[in-house]
Amino acid sequence: MKEAQYLLRPVGVVSSLLKSLEDCPKQGWEGAPDAWLEIDPLFADALDGLVVGSEIIVLTWLHESRRDLLKVHPRGDPDNPLRGVFATRSPDRPNPVGLHRVKILDMPKPCRLRVGPLEALNGTPIIDIKPMLDESEAL
Amino acid sequence: MKEAQYLLRPVGVVSSLLKSLEDCPKQGWEGAPDAWLEIDPLFADALDGLVVGSEIIVLTWLHESRRDLLKVHPRGDPDNPLRGVFATRSPDRPNPVGLHRVKILDMPKPCRLRVGPLEALNGTPIIDIKPMLDESEAL
Repeated sequence: MKEAQYLLRPVGVVSSLLKSLEDCPKQGWEGAPDAWLEIDPLFADALDGLVVGSEIIVLTWLHESRRDLLKVHPRGDPDNPLRGVFATRSPDRPNPVGLHRVKILDMPKPCRLRVGPLEALNGTPIIDIKPMLDESEAL
Repeated sequence: MKEAQYLLRPVGVVSSLLKSLEDCPKQGWEGAPDAWLEIDPLFADALDGLVVGSEIIVLTWLHESRRDLLKVHPRGDPDNPLRGVFATRSPDRPNPVGLHRVKILDMPKPCRLRVGPLEALNGTPIIDIKPMLDESEAL
């Protein structure tokens, strides 16, 4: 396969009060704030059908992560024994894709979505949005 | 940001009985078979801590998808009105990341994981594995 086929194209960016990694909670439900998804107008048509009040899965590219770590101390706590990154939610991993389940709180303009809670840093590239399908999926 | 930072590195590949897109169910729970995750031994350490019986989220790169479609007929049915791809689970999307919740059924060797159900095509690149955190997350 050609390398270009593996190249991600950011479709937007997170606008958040979280300005440094130290500010970020480990998970959305651990006190993360609401944030804006600013979608590139080139991709406006892809948003058609999303409505306020629905839950979505946002995939981000955790651009400040390390990609060369295969084991980490879970939650960054040196007292936790080293564990493989695929058995943790560490942002440090070979492909640092962030997975966030959030609710759409407002859409004042077609390409601006207010969502929450979101633990991603301000400026984090967005690579995909997916709808939650139904409760039975629980994903 | 440099382009290389957006380049995915496959960490393994799906080995499945599903050999063509026509064979693939739309979602895992719609009759998808069990399959193997064949992880590149370079990433063996990243698997440390995963155990048989646990549920994981597998992220794949749906390499046979179209990346230029912004609207699709949901479930490929022309009777369904066109909808933005971010409001569907279509594999056709700007960044065709597949999201699969599966159970680990067997790990006969460190880099071979039997999982299921998995609706991904044989040969689909794997880009990440994440643990489910707990039931309260429901993700």
